[in-house]
Amino acid sequence: MYRPGIKVLDCTIRDGGLINKWQFSDELVRETYIACAAAGVDYVEIGYKASPELYPAPEYGVWRFCRDEDVNRVLDGVERTAKLSCMVDIGRVREEDIAPCSDSPFDLIRVATYIKDIDKAIALANLCMDRGYEVAVNIMAVSTNLEKDIDEALAQLAETAVPIVYVVDSYGSMYSEDITFLVKRYIEALPGKTIGMHCHNNRQLAFGNTIQGIIDNADMLDASVFGIGRGAGNCCLELLLSFLKNPKFDVRPILQLIQDRFVPLRQEIEWGYLIPYAITGMLNEHPRTAIALRNSPDADKYVEFYDKLTTPEVIE
Amino acid sequence: MYRPGIKVLDCTIRDGGLINKWQFSDELVRETYIACAAAGVDYVEIGYKASPELYPAPEYGVWRFCRDEDVNRVLDGVERTAKLSCMVDIGRVREEDIAPCSDSPFDLIRVATYIKDIDKAIALANLCMDRGYEVAVNIMAVSTNLEKDIDEALAQLAETAVPIVYVVDSYGSMYSEDITFLVKRYIEALPGKTIGMHCHNNRQLAFGNTIQGIIDNADMLDASVFGIGRGAGNCCLELLLSFLKNPKFDVRPILQLIQDRFVPLRQEIEWGYLIPYAITGMLNEHPRTAIALRNSPDADKYVEFYDKLTTPEVIE
Repeated sequence: MYRPGIKVLDCTIRDGGLINKWQFSDELVRETYIACAAAGVDYVEIGYKASPELYPAPEYGVWRFCRDEDVNRVLDGVERTAKLSCMVDIGRVREEDIAPCSDSPFDLIRVATYIKDIDKAIALANLCMDRGYEVAVNIMAVSTNLEKDIDEALAQLAETAVPIVYVVDSYGSMYSEDITFLVKRYIEALPGKTIGMHCHNNRQLAFGNTIQGIIDNADMLDASVFGIGRGAGNCCLELLLSFLKNPKFDVRPILQLIQDRFVPLRQEIEWGYLIPYAITGMLNEHPRTAIALRNSPDADKYVEFYDKLTTPEVIE
Repeated sequence: MYRPGIKVLDCTIRDGGLINKWQFSDELVRETYIACAAAGVDYVEIGYKASPELYPAPEYGVWRFCRDEDVNRVLDGVERTAKLSCMVDIGRVREEDIAPCSDSPFDLIRVATYIKDIDKAIALANLCMDRGYEVAVNIMAVSTNLEKDIDEALAQLAETAVPIVYVVDSYGSMYSEDITFLVKRYIEALPGKTIGMHCHNNRQLAFGNTIQGIIDNADMLDASVFGIGRGAGNCCLELLLSFLKNPKFDVRPILQLIQDRFVPLRQEIEWGYLIPYAITGMLNEHPRTAIALRNSPDADKYVEFYDKLTTPEVIE
């Protein structure tokens, strides 16, 4: 029997854009939205809101900014049965980039933050809520924080009206018992709020950890088409939808989209299970070194990479 | 703190051979054994024992038969610090193919069986034990059996001296709660025996399910290098070794082996996460239809395949 509170957020374009600086064709974005909506996905996150001063065009595609005119062009004539989401990073978006919700195609804004910036995240979340949006706070890289700092951030969030707080396994380093530990901690600290799960697939655990989150009562679940996302990517939307029992979900439109668009795209840009990403996941590290390796002539020199990351360096 | 009872079995050559009829070079098999032994793997399973009448050479490579002379040639001069294992299928091996253990390079024989053949499996297991081998019984495709039949088979196995019984997720259709259900059932029904885990990766859950097995006290864990195995393949040995805390395990030799041998091999033969295997996993079906699809011109026609498998056919 399904849990009606469970919502699915597709982050294909937003997280996938971290690979190619959001250089997706309008057709791909449009077809992704249409397929997700047909599949019963609740939210489709199509990019970031960001200050154009920080990200020069044409190096960065339009979904780095999520301007209303781009959304309206791409989704012209499309029935908006799935809500639209975008993400904002602390310090990379200006107040004037966030229009009142009533004038905007977006329903949800997600604030991505490290624990150390939680005060800034709460201020930005409050601004977005004041402008009428649904808001989530995604605490990134929580696998690298001490519990006392996590508890302090959660206590601060408990005092706010932010309705959704995410457990984010940024480095794909967690396994099921870590998920249980954190989801329980978040639920206890944040009564009445929805807990979200955003997992990376460095150790092929993104889907398994998302299932563990469901078991532990996380209700807002991130996934992406064919697992696209930076580095090893995310939980596969096709796997998640086929697992969930709510009859509103239908994996078929996503299979069609993978066949038509994402198998060809995977020939052009790289994501998924690759040994360098597995190594950074094992070591609970940011994938940036692995991404650099994959873009170098040493892309498959795994042992050299492993030795480099595991050789102790003297820090005075 | 690690659990000393945990043993790792590498099934790279045995399960990988299901893809290419065991057409591996001697060098690859030798290097796989050496790397696994250096990595602290407890058992290396290099093939099947089988009647040569059933599998014509040269269509089938030597690891379909695991003759002593092939083992001794390939491992000539190699220190045998990891035990050697082979598998036998009910009805596909003759008594004369199984030499006394004292004359054989093998330590462990694993009997693969469906529930319906459990009596035959016990007879074959008893024969192997009589000849001096360690023995395991791997009950395949248990996700398709009724509990009453599982219970009956386990009750029969409880009466035997077979020391190891495996939970096998042949179709990659199980998730963590299924693993817990079965491992607990096996442990309760089989006091004093070791429970094994053999998972397939159709839904990217092989490693996650193996972790769940560890949590539930399964102590014998199957994995393969870079996840090689029929269809979606198995739990990745590199992920499992990096997860286990016993200091005897070292992932580094496996990373070297992947870099030198298995990344090139993956260009020649196919395994891993592919949508047709995900679909048979979702549907709890044998991957044979997906394998056939991948070997056809329609390899990427996922929706047609999905529709075919999910359209009810009248069965009178």
